[in-house]
Amino acid sequence: MHIGILTGGGDCPGLNAVIRAVTLALLNQGAARVTGIRRGFLGLLTRDVVKLDEAAVAGILAQGGTMLGTHNRCDPFHYFGAGGADVSAQAMAYVRELGLDALVAIGGDGTMTIAQRFAALGLPVVGVPKTIDNDICHNERSFGFDSAVAVVAEALDRLDTTARSHGRVMIVETMGRYAGWIALEGGLAGGAQVILLPELPYRLEAVAEVCRQREASQGYTLICIAEGAKAQGGGLTVARTLADSPDPLRLGGVGAVLAQQLQPLVQSEVRSTLLGHVQRGGSPTPFDRVLATRFGYAAAQRVLRREWGCMVALAGAEIVSVPLETVAGCSRPVPADHELLAAARGLGISLGV
Amino acid sequence: MHIGILTGGGDCPGLNAVIRAVTLALLNQGAARVTGIRRGFLGLLTRDVVKLDEAAVAGILAQGGTMLGTHNRCDPFHYFGAGGADVSAQAMAYVRELGLDALVAIGGDGTMTIAQRFAALGLPVVGVPKTIDNDICHNERSFGFDSAVAVVAEALDRLDTTARSHGRVMIVETMGRYAGWIALEGGLAGGAQVILLPELPYRLEAVAEVCRQREASQGYTLICIAEGAKAQGGGLTVARTLADSPDPLRLGGVGAVLAQQLQPLVQSEVRSTLLGHVQRGGSPTPFDRVLATRFGYAAAQRVLRREWGCMVALAGAEIVSVPLETVAGCSRPVPADHELLAAARGLGISLGV
Amino acid sequence: MHIGILTGGGDCPGLNAVIRAVTLALLNQGAARVTGIRRGFLGLLTRDVVKLDEAAVAGILAQGGTMLGTHNRCDPFHYFGAGGADVSAQAMAYVRELGLDALVAIGGDGTMTIAQRFAALGLPVVGVPKTIDNDICHNERSFGFDSAVAVVAEALDRLDTTARSHGRVMIVETMGRYAGWIALEGGLAGGAQVILLPELPYRLEAVAEVCRQREASQGYTLICIAEGAKAQGGGLTVARTLADSPDPLRLGGVGAVLAQQLQPLVQSEVRSTLLGHVQRGGSPTPFDRVLATRFGYAAAQRVLRREWGCMVALAGAEIVSVPLETVAGCSRPVPADHELLAAARGLGISLGV
Amino acid sequence: MHIGILTGGGDCPGLNAVIRAVTLALLNQGAARVTGIRRGFLGLLTRDVVKLDEAAVAGILAQGGTMLGTHNRCDPFHYFGAGGADVSAQAMAYVRELGLDALVAIGGDGTMTIAQRFAALGLPVVGVPKTIDNDICHNERSFGFDSAVAVVAEALDRLDTTARSHGRVMIVETMGRYAGWIALEGGLAGGAQVILLPELPYRLEAVAEVCRQREASQGYTLICIAEGAKAQGGGLTVARTLADSPDPLRLGGVGAVLAQQLQPLVQSEVRSTLLGHVQRGGSPTPFDRVLATRFGYAAAQRVLRREWGCMVALAGAEIVSVPLETVAGCSRPVPADHELLAAARGLGISLGV
Repeated sequence: MHIGILTGGGDCPGLNAVIRAVTLALLNQGAARVTGIRRGFLGLLTRDVVKLDEAAVAGILAQGGTMLGTHNRCDPFHYFGAGGADVSAQAMAYVRELGLDALVAIGGDGTMTIAQRFAALGLPVVGVPKTIDNDICHNERSFGFDSAVAVVAEALDRLDTTARSHGRVMIVETMGRYAGWIALEGGLAGGAQVILLPELPYRLEAVAEVCRQREASQGYTLICIAEGAKAQGGGLTVARTLADSPDPLRLGGVGAVLAQQLQPLVQSEVRSTLLGHVQRGGSPTPFDRVLATRFGYAAAQRVLRREWGCMVALAGAEIVSVPLETVAGCSRPVPADHELLAAARGLGISLGV
Repeated sequence: MHIGILTGGGDCPGLNAVIRAVTLALLNQGAARVTGIRRGFLGLLTRDVVKLDEAAVAGILAQGGTMLGTHNRCDPFHYFGAGGADVSAQAMAYVRELGLDALVAIGGDGTMTIAQRFAALGLPVVGVPKTIDNDICHNERSFGFDSAVAVVAEALDRLDTTARSHGRVMIVETMGRYAGWIALEGGLAGGAQVILLPELPYRLEAVAEVCRQREASQGYTLICIAEGAKAQGGGLTVARTLADSPDPLRLGGVGAVLAQQLQPLVQSEVRSTLLGHVQRGGSPTPFDRVLATRFGYAAAQRVLRREWGCMVALAGAEIVSVPLETVAGCSRPVPADHELLAAARGLGISLGV
Repeated sequence: MHIGILTGGGDCPGLNAVIRAVTLALLNQGAARVTGIRRGFLGLLTRDVVKLDEAAVAGILAQGGTMLGTHNRCDPFHYFGAGGADVSAQAMAYVRELGLDALVAIGGDGTMTIAQRFAALGLPVVGVPKTIDNDICHNERSFGFDSAVAVVAEALDRLDTTARSHGRVMIVETMGRYAGWIALEGGLAGGAQVILLPELPYRLEAVAEVCRQREASQGYTLICIAEGAKAQGGGLTVARTLADSPDPLRLGGVGAVLAQQLQPLVQSEVRSTLLGHVQRGGSPTPFDRVLATRFGYAAAQRVLRREWGCMVALAGAEIVSVPLETVAGCSRPVPADHELLAAARGLGISLGV
Repeated sequence: MHIGILTGGGDCPGLNAVIRAVTLALLNQGAARVTGIRRGFLGLLTRDVVKLDEAAVAGILAQGGTMLGTHNRCDPFHYFGAGGADVSAQAMAYVRELGLDALVAIGGDGTMTIAQRFAALGLPVVGVPKTIDNDICHNERSFGFDSAVAVVAEALDRLDTTARSHGRVMIVETMGRYAGWIALEGGLAGGAQVILLPELPYRLEAVAEVCRQREASQGYTLICIAEGAKAQGGGLTVARTLADSPDPLRLGGVGAVLAQQLQPLVQSEVRSTLLGHVQRGGSPTPFDRVLATRFGYAAAQRVLRREWGCMVALAGAEIVSVPLETVAGCSRPVPADHELLAAARGLGISLGV
């Protein structure tokens, strides 16, 4: 068999570990060839590929990013953008020229949707879920997520000492536009006293009240806010303050805006930090390396069994198969009755409501 | 209610996170008092306790070790050792004097056994599993384990660069006398080419063969060996080499002995590193902080519901209750058919057999 | 002797190491008492002090922040602010009540100026330089600086993998309003291809040109910019874009503005990260712990020798004494002929000019 | 000009940063070609070289080890060993074939001695000092040393929490056969209460006394011992205990032996950790990356100025040139009157005497 591999969408720590595991598991167990496609589906159009063997994947396990490169928006069925031309025939011609028997697609919702359309054209596919936000349906934990949480927790560890020394309110804005997993686990791990999620619109006054109470007791407060968090009643609309910015999240973000709104309501100084892309770069944590290796191995086994049209996923402690069509267009926000929310509330951590 | 907490057995990262979560969850949800007992069950004999409240547990989430101290061998039913006197009545007198209604015991197999005997004397108990080796029955993942794996993986990351530069065989000896989880996950995460576990007696010649093959290809080899790993046929008996040592694991360990035995069989230099207690110290990883917090919160909920005689445990992605009596005298080695062993073999990693 | 210690101004990693070293060195070598004054000079007004002995400073060596707390703006000679009342007599009354013989003041330019005025009132002083920005006169390297550089370098390490995977321009904004040491050493250590400092106004077009050339070769660019960096001709004025913000550095900062200005001039996506207070929090690096310990020990020796009115400082590899009056109102920007600038240029790193 | 680069002796973090800086600085400033010689001087015999250009050194700044490989014992003037044949003519023939105009030799005492002999044969040389132990003459601080100190300090940080929880004596054995710099700075940075160096033979009883005193106060003790540390009167001779071992440092080392000797003299349990090669592997600290970059740039400048026969070195805060002949056969132990020893004593840290 000759198998292609590509990584699509935003990068995250562990992609290289998946590429390595798929490659080694396929070659050690009898697949004839493995080829890496560069920059997501774009490589099928630019005819940009690389041979993958033991030497090619040596030393990449611990490296962040993806050795294949990736592309956020390349969809050969709409090239580029929603109204774009369908150039998939061109991509399939190259697939046939290469002699690819199947594709391992590592990516999110969008990548899986495109992969399925290629499957319909005759390129069978096995998917590997990739999301820094931990929000792909039917998959309990994604590689890269633990690494992002570790970055957030380390930032909170650092801010704790300076917040305490100065008696300040410190805000950390994390990734998470639609799902608050990173802010939730990062905030819990870093000891934040307030955690604000997209799933739970918050009351500014509730946040301020926590800060004021702590001014009288511990003297400082750590707030962990996801970039998609919203105030109840839309109080956090950033339109006026950032009128000139085409992308409010580029200029300061919700953490900076919350800092401005909170400042008049509390005595101590309020400061915010925007971690940004630091959360998705760098060497994966050992946990993510193992999880990514498990995903990659499991994908290879499905390829060798010719079990097409599925995505590998973590369910409990097991790696399972999920039909690709149940993944597309689906997301996984933090459920209102999730154990971690109950735990946070139980420990006296404010969710801003 | 007035609840006591103690930590027993060897320490591991995350103990303070559990103490904090139990304390905060109990006090925030209505328990009247929480008291920490120092140095495991010894504190019930030496009458050494400390009041736990929000101020007492502030700032301990990220700290390694246990703020309560611990003790490896104190069993009030055998004080000290197997033939020791039963001084449990003395401990119970102090329990009554304190007015403790129940005990949260954080520990391993031994701690749970002792706790159950106190339960029989009228001190109801909820257990929290603690094992750096990840080998407590009915519990899929223990806090502290991820931190230990991270230390092993970081050591392998470091050794990779020096092994590669010099063309050497580098051996890392990890904890794990009876269960090889740390060596297995640490070895996978750190990219070891050989992983040797107590569960799978290895052939020295098979290990040497991997090293020799890699001398001709990559030029270096990383070996991750658990302290309890054994050669087939007992080849690793350390009697002759370490005749004068009462405790062979103190003087060099199986990694050093393997180095000596391997050296004549390969061309490149062989070196070994013994990580020792570094694996169980230091700040818990964010993963372990969250898991420990979940365990602590879950234990508190069981106390508040007066659900006695159980241990909290991780099953799949859920925290469940396990009857304490099913935990004692039971262990959890790596099963021969475990997915991670299959994945290791599939990727071409040698298990020495 | 009875010695007071205080920390003033912004916190930085290593303050606790200095407090510990001063305390241990004084008590071990015969000083009778050491007292910590809380929240900088404010503690002399609020009468907030703490006894310092071996137990009080145990375990603080590796902790970030300052166990004494600090205050950015409290000057008893102007309470608060430039036109404020002189309440120094009140502070001196408390000094006499405590029986303080001298003061060890750990702080920057401002703290040293205030300390000197107290010296004139009869409280002799030894200073220890504290600046995260590494810009105190006559002192070659400050504790805390290495820790800040390490945070910047780690962020660049992380951004390198994601920049490379996506083919992006990544900007990191560091601390440094007037002196660019952090951006310079952090940028060099993190492998940035462009480093922009307050001392060297840059040309936007020169920066864009580097990015465009790298788009054709390596495919990505890392830019490290100090918060005080300015474009030549004032191109970076943030007035229009951030009109509503009282403090432009709070809302996005120069990095975000540079990203907006650079985007139209290059093909690849441009993203920025604002590290903020993360750079001044957290455990000091081992280098900073040793340097802080040396400073603290040296300050204690000067106290024991009654060598008043000086600040300890690093000159070459030696700790020397500098008269306090030569420190006030003086700063230490990166000199135009500094070896590191020459090295950067020699290696082909752009300074934007 | 056509310049060769090689790395000799044991590897250490920062070698790649030097290779990168030399290469970039030479090529950016007009040298025609740069060639890397593999595995130290061995590459001149095996004719194993690699072209170095911007692409070849991209991404190596943060990597441990040396991309060129190294060799501990290859001396073409004695191939192999003290009585070996002189095959230098063979090496010089290859040098002429390559057309090398000069050599940048990165290494220690041994490498510099060999390089000088090649210089006499017509291959001019500029040296860059490399020693993990920080003990090369006329050079105040070597790259790699800060990274090794950081590993020791992190190990002590980890051991602190477990030592404290159990009330134990914990011993860390560091590198340093003849010079104790790593143990000294690592011990100071990690908060050890006892630091034992090769330069200061210690009294076992003095060490035991510190442990016993601390059993009564803090309850635990951290000891940092260099591998070359010796007891006064030879008490630490390992002959009897490790009679069967050809290399005592491989089997346990002086830390393990000290643990055995100390155990009968104290009440608490004594445990030891041998860090081994972990200290010389892994990514260099930002400090070391900057220092290595400075050294590499400075070496390139000397090449461009044709200033041969010198080694670059750090003197105070400056990079200077030192004649190569003054380096060979010279070492730099910790002087008895060194400021750090005085500081350690002043803070109450025992040096075992």
